[in-house]
Amino acid sequence: MTNSPKSSFVLSHRHLLGIEGLSAADITGLLDLGEEFVALNRQIEKKQASLRGRTQINMFFEVSTRTQASFELAGKRLGADVMNMSASSSSMRKGETLIDTAMTLNAMHPDILVVRHHASGAVELLASKLDCSVINAGDGAHEHPTQALLDALTIRRNKGRIEGLLVVICGDILHSRVARSNILLLNTMGARVRVVGPSTLMPPGIERMGVEVAHDMREGLADADIVMMLRLQRERMNGSFVPSVSEYFNYWGLDTKKLAYAKKDALVMHPGPMNRGVEIDSIVADGAQSLIREQVEMGVAIRMAVLEALSRNLPNA
Amino acid sequence: MTNSPKSSFVLSHRHLLGIEGLSAADITGLLDLGEEFVALNRQIEKKQASLRGRTQINMFFEVSTRTQASFELAGKRLGADVMNMSASSSSMRKGETLIDTAMTLNAMHPDILVVRHHASGAVELLASKLDCSVINAGDGAHEHPTQALLDALTIRRNKGRIEGLLVVICGDILHSRVARSNILLLNTMGARVRVVGPSTLMPPGIERMGVEVAHDMREGLADADIVMMLRLQRERMNGSFVPSVSEYFNYWGLDTKKLAYAKKDALVMHPGPMNRGVEIDSIVADGAQSLIREQVEMGVAIRMAVLEALSRNLPNA
Amino acid sequence: MTNSPKSSFVLSHRHLLGIEGLSAADITGLLDLGEEFVALNRQIEKKQASLRGRTQINMFFEVSTRTQASFELAGKRLGADVMNMSASSSSMRKGETLIDTAMTLNAMHPDILVVRHHASGAVELLASKLDCSVINAGDGAHEHPTQALLDALTIRRNKGRIEGLLVVICGDILHSRVARSNILLLNTMGARVRVVGPSTLMPPGIERMGVEVAHDMREGLADADIVMMLRLQRERMNGSFVPSVSEYFNYWGLDTKKLAYAKKDALVMHPGPMNRGVEIDSIVADGAQSLIREQVEMGVAIRMAVLEALSRNLPNA
Repeated sequence: MTNSPKSSFVLSHRHLLGIEGLSAADITGLLDLGEEFVALNRQIEKKQASLRGRTQINMFFEVSTRTQASFELAGKRLGADVMNMSASSSSMRKGETLIDTAMTLNAMHPDILVVRHHASGAVELLASKLDCSVINAGDGAHEHPTQALLDALTIRRNKGRIEGLLVVICGDILHSRVARSNILLLNTMGARVRVVGPSTLMPPGIERMGVEVAHDMREGLADADIVMMLRLQRERMNGSFVPSVSEYFNYWGLDTKKLAYAKKDALVMHPGPMNRGVEIDSIVADGAQSLIREQVEMGVAIRMAVLEALSRNLPNA
Repeated sequence: MTNSPKSSFVLSHRHLLGIEGLSAADITGLLDLGEEFVALNRQIEKKQASLRGRTQINMFFEVSTRTQASFELAGKRLGADVMNMSASSSSMRKGETLIDTAMTLNAMHPDILVVRHHASGAVELLASKLDCSVINAGDGAHEHPTQALLDALTIRRNKGRIEGLLVVICGDILHSRVARSNILLLNTMGARVRVVGPSTLMPPGIERMGVEVAHDMREGLADADIVMMLRLQRERMNGSFVPSVSEYFNYWGLDTKKLAYAKKDALVMHPGPMNRGVEIDSIVADGAQSLIREQVEMGVAIRMAVLEALSRNLPNA
Repeated sequence: MTNSPKSSFVLSHRHLLGIEGLSAADITGLLDLGEEFVALNRQIEKKQASLRGRTQINMFFEVSTRTQASFELAGKRLGADVMNMSASSSSMRKGETLIDTAMTLNAMHPDILVVRHHASGAVELLASKLDCSVINAGDGAHEHPTQALLDALTIRRNKGRIEGLLVVICGDILHSRVARSNILLLNTMGARVRVVGPSTLMPPGIERMGVEVAHDMREGLADADIVMMLRLQRERMNGSFVPSVSEYFNYWGLDTKKLAYAKKDALVMHPGPMNRGVEIDSIVADGAQSLIREQVEMGVAIRMAVLEALSRNLPNA
């Protein structure tokens, strides 16, 4: 219990609902705090005390082992009492409304609620009804702010900066909250962002988000510093054109040949879980340019940073 | 760790299997202790130490997010090591008998076991085979004592007393362990209890439990101080008459018109999760007379009270 | 937090992947440490501090309430932060490979990973990719080392020794990792081992593991000091001959008549969960010669011993 981060950064918001609304100073503050937790997590004694006596509830209406585990570990390492609630075992199945669920949770006096929900905007709705701090762990195709933050931390550690880099986001932009949060963050931090993917999986008017749009991988990857692959979310493609796997890989999958279009020192990212051989080839995923494993490590650190920064806003903390 | 309740109440039983067998002094002791935990839970530092080093196992053979979460939080706030076991992941699926499950649990030396089971009497059977304290978190249509205790605490906080009040319990009395435990508690505490609901959902001979029976909502709600709605448990109605939702709401659902039959200052309760538009109208559920949100808060507090009171009976505590 | 075991035994391996490779000194060291935890678990204050600040992840690709609960309790009692991850809620369902799962886990910096997997060798593969200590909680038909260790502790407590005893393992040897680990351990510790069961459920060449093979229960149980029954694993018998339950019980089920073939003071074991009336009769399972309940208690103690012994090998512990 002797370690604690030196940064005294306090987030200027009660919740973390999205990257939208965060300033560059907010983002930098979280990344600096995250960087400290990377070092602390590599120590033998990882336990902190800053959330001691606090209650953190993870409410996942959509299954996600990786993200939930990351938040659970982050909370436990900070000393919180962490409770997981999942949709499959929830009253929602018995027809309870989202607002009733919110009220039920609120009455349990959690300090921090981490929510994942399949509907865009559901987390913001919950937050508006609750007294505690709310963290969006992914809502529909809207935002996934901690993913964008951990990606930014990974980039900054490996490139030394974010500003001025060309980050190319590839694949299913339409269904991706990861893409959306990353575009918002990278724009705020002064990076140049380009998206590339099948036209059927590209949101109409995406240019208005301040990104360049490319139509094939050769054009898309030219001069890229960072190549950020997205998971092909077949489970979310209600009614959209669903490409065959081999056809998709042929046109849009990242293999060594396509990666050669990018800068020589380009680095490759993927939010996981990967569909190997669909959106990314194993040789690239496991290669020297891949940051994929580091991203998971950054995930725990950045979630500790977010929990810590929000907890400093809690009453009488 | 500086807070702890002032009440030195000790429950005169090793288990909490039902309201049946509790004296008025037992109930009052638990409500007084619960009242202290309400205040402690509203503080920043909610952590207590009275179950430190103790093992609490929550064994839920029937899914219940709300009740399980409430017991989990209660145990963690008191410092216990809490372990959840659910039927869906249990050996029971592999054909193990209830007694073998009991023996398995017992050999793990828990101090407190919280059990929910779909069969009436299953919790008592388990308790008879175990060395630890057992809390009934709902067994079939038999009892759900912590629900009745939290309802009583909610009533007492809002009406200043329980004795002499007219409490009307409405709906599916036949399948409701909540109704049964509430009737037992309210009788013991000197309240007047009336039940009202469809004749097909009314246990034959219910009058022998010391309650009045009404046959429609106008007659039923007359002079009511408390209107306690029950959830329509369609999942438990094996072979019973299952009413259509709109028909049910029309005759038995609580709306503002029917609520007007009760006393002007009548208060409305529901154990949750609610079927809005089936047994209760949203205007009533969210209205000024509703205590529904407070009930959930009382749930955590009363479960802490029960855990604390039982732990004081544990050997060498 | 005042209690801790006196034994200073350190396991000579970083992982516990199987009984194979353990020396008699390793096994004795674990049994002695387990014996101390039996006593500590029977005390009021069960909490230890040796895993304080450590992260233990239980990754179960195959459901097992009993074993998972045992490891969870063991870790929590030693003060670890314990996180459960199950296959049903895992990214594996989204098509992630075992190696990617390993990498994801590794990036979370656990200190100890407890793994159960349906494929033989999967745990060893995971261990080869991970920086932390790995405990095999059962992999396919390969090994289940903590079960063999708890069985050995149960035998030693009741017979005072293991060396020189005749242990007869009965039933489905073919699919049983329990049988395999027990044979390895008992051979190492100098016991005599005999297996008996239907020829269709007997691995070809089993004699080469240093065991006697018997073909019926009368011959099999003659002179037995310990009769170890196995669970009939119908869920694992892909393509094998599946006997009818009554026929199986008739030939191979342990009832009082068959038990009489063994020594007068023979003791009966079963790893659980039991199929009563299939591989064992209730009169025997619950009788005076049965050690089945004690086995569960030994399970928690031996897992604490394994966690403790491995933790002493962790860096800077």
